[in-house]
Amino acid sequence: MKKVGIVMGSDSDLPIIQKATKMLDGLGVPYEVHVYSAHRTPVQAMDFALNAEERGFGVIIAAAGMAAHLAGVLAANTTLPVIGIPCSSSNLDGLDALLATVQMPTGIPVATVAVNGGGNAALLAAQIIALGDEELSEKLKAKRKADAEAVLAKDAGIMERL
Amino acid sequence: MKKVGIVMGSDSDLPIIQKATKMLDGLGVPYEVHVYSAHRTPVQAMDFALNAEERGFGVIIAAAGMAAHLAGVLAANTTLPVIGIPCSSSNLDGLDALLATVQMPTGIPVATVAVNGGGNAALLAAQIIALGDEELSEKLKAKRKADAEAVLAKDAGIMERL
Amino acid sequence: MKKVGIVMGSDSDLPIIQKATKMLDGLGVPYEVHVYSAHRTPVQAMDFALNAEERGFGVIIAAAGMAAHLAGVLAANTTLPVIGIPCSSSNLDGLDALLATVQMPTGIPVATVAVNGGGNAALLAAQIIALGDEELSEKLKAKRKADAEAVLAKDAGIMERL
Amino acid sequence: MKKVGIVMGSDSDLPIIQKATKMLDGLGVPYEVHVYSAHRTPVQAMDFALNAEERGFGVIIAAAGMAAHLAGVLAANTTLPVIGIPCSSSNLDGLDALLATVQMPTGIPVATVAVNGGGNAALLAAQIIALGDEELSEKLKAKRKADAEAVLAKDAGIMERL
Amino acid sequence: MKKVGIVMGSDSDLPIIQKATKMLDGLGVPYEVHVYSAHRTPVQAMDFALNAEERGFGVIIAAAGMAAHLAGVLAANTTLPVIGIPCSSSNLDGLDALLATVQMPTGIPVATVAVNGGGNAALLAAQIIALGDEELSEKLKAKRKADAEAVLAKDAGIMERL
Amino acid sequence: MKKVGIVMGSDSDLPIIQKATKMLDGLGVPYEVHVYSAHRTPVQAMDFALNAEERGFGVIIAAAGMAAHLAGVLAANTTLPVIGIPCSSSNLDGLDALLATVQMPTGIPVATVAVNGGGNAALLAAQIIALGDEELSEKLKAKRKADAEAVLAKDAGIMERL
Amino acid sequence: MKKVGIVMGSDSDLPIIQKATKMLDGLGVPYEVHVYSAHRTPVQAMDFALNAEERGFGVIIAAAGMAAHLAGVLAANTTLPVIGIPCSSSNLDGLDALLATVQMPTGIPVATVAVNGGGNAALLAAQIIALGDEELSEKLKAKRKADAEAVLAKDAGIMERL
Amino acid sequence: MKKVGIVMGSDSDLPIIQKATKMLDGLGVPYEVHVYSAHRTPVQAMDFALNAEERGFGVIIAAAGMAAHLAGVLAANTTLPVIGIPCSSSNLDGLDALLATVQMPTGIPVATVAVNGGGNAALLAAQIIALGDEELSEKLKAKRKADAEAVLAKDAGIMERL
Repeated sequence: MKKVGIVMGSDSDLPIIQKATKMLDGLGVPYEVHVYSAHRTPVQAMDFALNAEERGFGVIIAAAGMAAHLAGVLAANTTLPVIGIPCSSSNLDGLDALLATVQMPTGIPVATVAVNGGGNAALLAAQIIALGDEELSEKLKAKRKADAEAVLAKDAGIMERL
Repeated sequence: MKKVGIVMGSDSDLPIIQKATKMLDGLGVPYEVHVYSAHRTPVQAMDFALNAEERGFGVIIAAAGMAAHLAGVLAANTTLPVIGIPCSSSNLDGLDALLATVQMPTGIPVATVAVNGGGNAALLAAQIIALGDEELSEKLKAKRKADAEAVLAKDAGIMERL
Repeated sequence: MKKVGIVMGSDSDLPIIQKATKMLDGLGVPYEVHVYSAHRTPVQAMDFALNAEERGFGVIIAAAGMAAHLAGVLAANTTLPVIGIPCSSSNLDGLDALLATVQMPTGIPVATVAVNGGGNAALLAAQIIALGDEELSEKLKAKRKADAEAVLAKDAGIMERL
Repeated sequence: MKKVGIVMGSDSDLPIIQKATKMLDGLGVPYEVHVYSAHRTPVQAMDFALNAEERGFGVIIAAAGMAAHLAGVLAANTTLPVIGIPCSSSNLDGLDALLATVQMPTGIPVATVAVNGGGNAALLAAQIIALGDEELSEKLKAKRKADAEAVLAKDAGIMERL
Repeated sequence: MKKVGIVMGSDSDLPIIQKATKMLDGLGVPYEVHVYSAHRTPVQAMDFALNAEERGFGVIIAAAGMAAHLAGVLAANTTLPVIGIPCSSSNLDGLDALLATVQMPTGIPVATVAVNGGGNAALLAAQIIALGDEELSEKLKAKRKADAEAVLAKDAGIMERL
Repeated sequence: MKKVGIVMGSDSDLPIIQKATKMLDGLGVPYEVHVYSAHRTPVQAMDFALNAEERGFGVIIAAAGMAAHLAGVLAANTTLPVIGIPCSSSNLDGLDALLATVQMPTGIPVATVAVNGGGNAALLAAQIIALGDEELSEKLKAKRKADAEAVLAKDAGIMERL
Repeated sequence: MKKVGIVMGSDSDLPIIQKATKMLDGLGVPYEVHVYSAHRTPVQAMDFALNAEERGFGVIIAAAGMAAHLAGVLAANTTLPVIGIPCSSSNLDGLDALLATVQMPTGIPVATVAVNGGGNAALLAAQIIALGDEELSEKLKAKRKADAEAVLAKDAGIMERL
Repeated sequence: MKKVGIVMGSDSDLPIIQKATKMLDGLGVPYEVHVYSAHRTPVQAMDFALNAEERGFGVIIAAAGMAAHLAGVLAANTTLPVIGIPCSSSNLDGLDALLATVQMPTGIPVATVAVNGGGNAALLAAQIIALGDEELSEKLKAKRKADAEAVLAKDAGIMERL
């Protein structure tokens, strides 16, 4: 199975990345995690993207905050799908990172998920990989069913909790 | 090759979708286009998503404006990757559609591109399909090279245009 | 009397719903509460709306956060009035939910109240039901009077609290 | 049948109100239209609301821009449901009117629709009145069906329009 | 000397009002404080404004949050200058109250100060009253001088605090 | 009667100032208009404020766009009331000017009116001056009445204009 | 004298760059202009920054829109001062570019000017270069004086233009 | 070596300034820190800027919150480069200070860094001074290398921290 490459711009984003790795662990999707800053280590970030396809990655997830350029820098150096997680920082509530991640110019798309959406970034990566992996596809469908059942279980008990 | 399913919430979004279909035509990626409103034709929208995998689609693109629920409705009914294009309408400059598309809760990701980003939605879809299609992957790399050369050609002539 | 159907997208919205149920209890308006996610349990959400009129509901209240589609999904499947409560989540202060709830396209209105406005959603539901119920109408007028008196009591004592 | 009272804060909002009256005409719902400014004619605005129930109104629609207080002023003086239409003006794209209309404090709800959403305000008013009017309820359902069919007709012809 | 009338929409705004009354106490400007809600006690709010000039008030200060209509309601019922303090509430950081206070339509101005700016509302009121009161004008100038000296005292010691 | 000093940061703001001077002409309030930039002519701006009281001004109106510092610069150099008009420029719809004008720190208030609100700035200035001028006060009350009558005249004819 | 390197992300930003080059021409500051996209030609953008100091540049100006990464990419590859011009595009009024340019993480500053602020970017570059160039410094002071005189000339004629 | 002049509008901004002075200490760049309010001590702020060049300063850093005029006031009175740090205050998350700092009109640029970006303001100042100081330039390059190595060290250990 193709691996998911996960890059965070700073290790302060680790809790968001852990939501992603936990999700991938649950689905049995292999991954590799890196800390590369688009600005402090631009060469390493670029190199990771340039070599990602050859090294067996199928999707890249990038998490960054503020003027979040990381996903864009990776996307500019690979034609693999790149998923961007805008991370909120101490000001502006993640709106800066969201706009800096999603508003990419034509030619270099970044598949952006919600602010701090580590879990969904992983799920989206798995959905992409599952296009060529029947077993993973079944796991995703099973997870959907389980998620729905969890909601319905809560529904069943909600009147008592009012 | 897997097809791209393209759904717009209203035919007023057609110019944005045409940016997508033109891109897919250029890359030789097959697609099918529909007008289904998440609110006015919820059953048809849902049915399209439920049957998309079986009907040979690999990715779904959804374009909608205002309280843009379409991508989310489709994503809720398939485990195929769903790409959302937030469309600007007469007020609020697309911020409403952007937030309504990207801020999906954990469990149901939508791969969001820029406001009115029809071209990038198509490119992202092609990048996803190219994971299992070497020829398409080469076309994407060739397009990247051509895009870069177009920029460099402009760079070569810019001093005269000042 | 017609019942109020209350649906929350996640049980994390329970405190907001409790403001609504407490208000309805005070006014003697019957209600039923559910947890249905627009995305994780789209069929149940849709079915609730489709059957609501027949099951004796007169108004539906939907509370959801982030890309808050729940009110729209319910409204798309009933012609009963649907009231939307945008719930704030950990980022963006509820602006995402507000825009995703209120900016509905023509044809499917959602009567939106303030961010986290559980109490007002219930009051609005009661005002709607009271159109056909003189006794409830009187209770609403009595509540208005009591609210005004509570303000005036505070006014009477304010100079001492400076 | 109960009438819909429609109040605009300024006659510059007339085009938005015409979307509402056209919708009500189509549904056969009676209405009365006024120009009352919350700020320039506060007494008349208040009086309209105070007497609305007695004069046979079932719902009030208020349209205003900028610091849009009109819906709130009307809502403060009646327990009839009040629907607010935030109107965009030359600056800030209607965000000012939206927040000034929807963010009502507990006790006085305003059922807010989209910026400039005249059509939906009328539909919501009709849905409220239809709770006590089987015939109107059927008309609303028929309109829903017609709206869906209009979408599907567009869907049928969309591939040719690419 | 003319009095300052201070009205808060809810006693939860008391801490902001106390910044104002403390400032007025320091300047020896007389005032009267009320709790009147634009929505829950519209008649009392209106009456206060209608009678303010006759009762010896020279300026009115209004503090309210969310869809902050209070200053506008008062301003609509007097030609005395009305100062609005937008108060932040639990969501949207006061932006709703700011826009609902400042964006008044032509004809009914509200002199708006910063979000939660109780102190400046009082100072502005004093500056207005001081136009006809030489002694108060001198006090304001003395306060300016004292404020400047306080800054310069901090400047003198800042290098040690690094 | 005390004069109103009007300062615009750039003559591109002239149309907004003309709304103000037209209003003052109608009320018979004397004024003097200047173009002083807070940044390009800081000394002249400061001097105007420092000498304003002595030169017979009672209120200062300042209109500026973008990082609108003009009102604050004037307010910092006088204890006369200063009214700020945030002017919209080609980007950001006046939100920059609004925040830069209204969010003044404690000690130096600016009485802020709506974006581009030239007419209301003048009215507010007149209301302030009218505190010491019975005749002007009567004119303001007459204008209010006339404004109300203009609304009611529109109300009388609105049904025909639908 | 050190040269100013000017890079635009797309030749659609040319009008904004022309404001910069016109300013530099007026001050006699040499410059070189390039079109390099942070995403479409990342290597060329990086190389320009890496070699800029050696090639005699003293300051770099970068203009880009949407998820404006260009200034950050250049800044990451040089320790020369980098000035960023956020360019507005068809949606969101330049807010996306502003946040993506200014919100740089610690370690890699970008000196950000106003949205579309080509002239000020050039002036700032000249101010930086003037630190080591007395003659340029004098030119900047002369320009300031001329700017002030232009304002005062407008002030002198403003009363006639009302 | 030229000194950096640092001015904060209020000593509540001290923690942000300490990020700047710590950075300058590490690079061996001399500085002087002041507390001058643009509004409470306008003359001192202006005088500092007017004399800065003569007193041996090469760059000025200004930190202020809310309607942050300080950087603009300083920039208006010197042709030295002025760096603005927008500081967040209790409301609006620093957006007010950001817009009030960055949106300067043509003629008076302010080099704006991120909200609360004290460290980057200092780095930018050092980069500017380093244009004429080879040794400082080398220190900046060494710091860049060290920053990159710190990221790579975190990268090396990240898999164990998941």
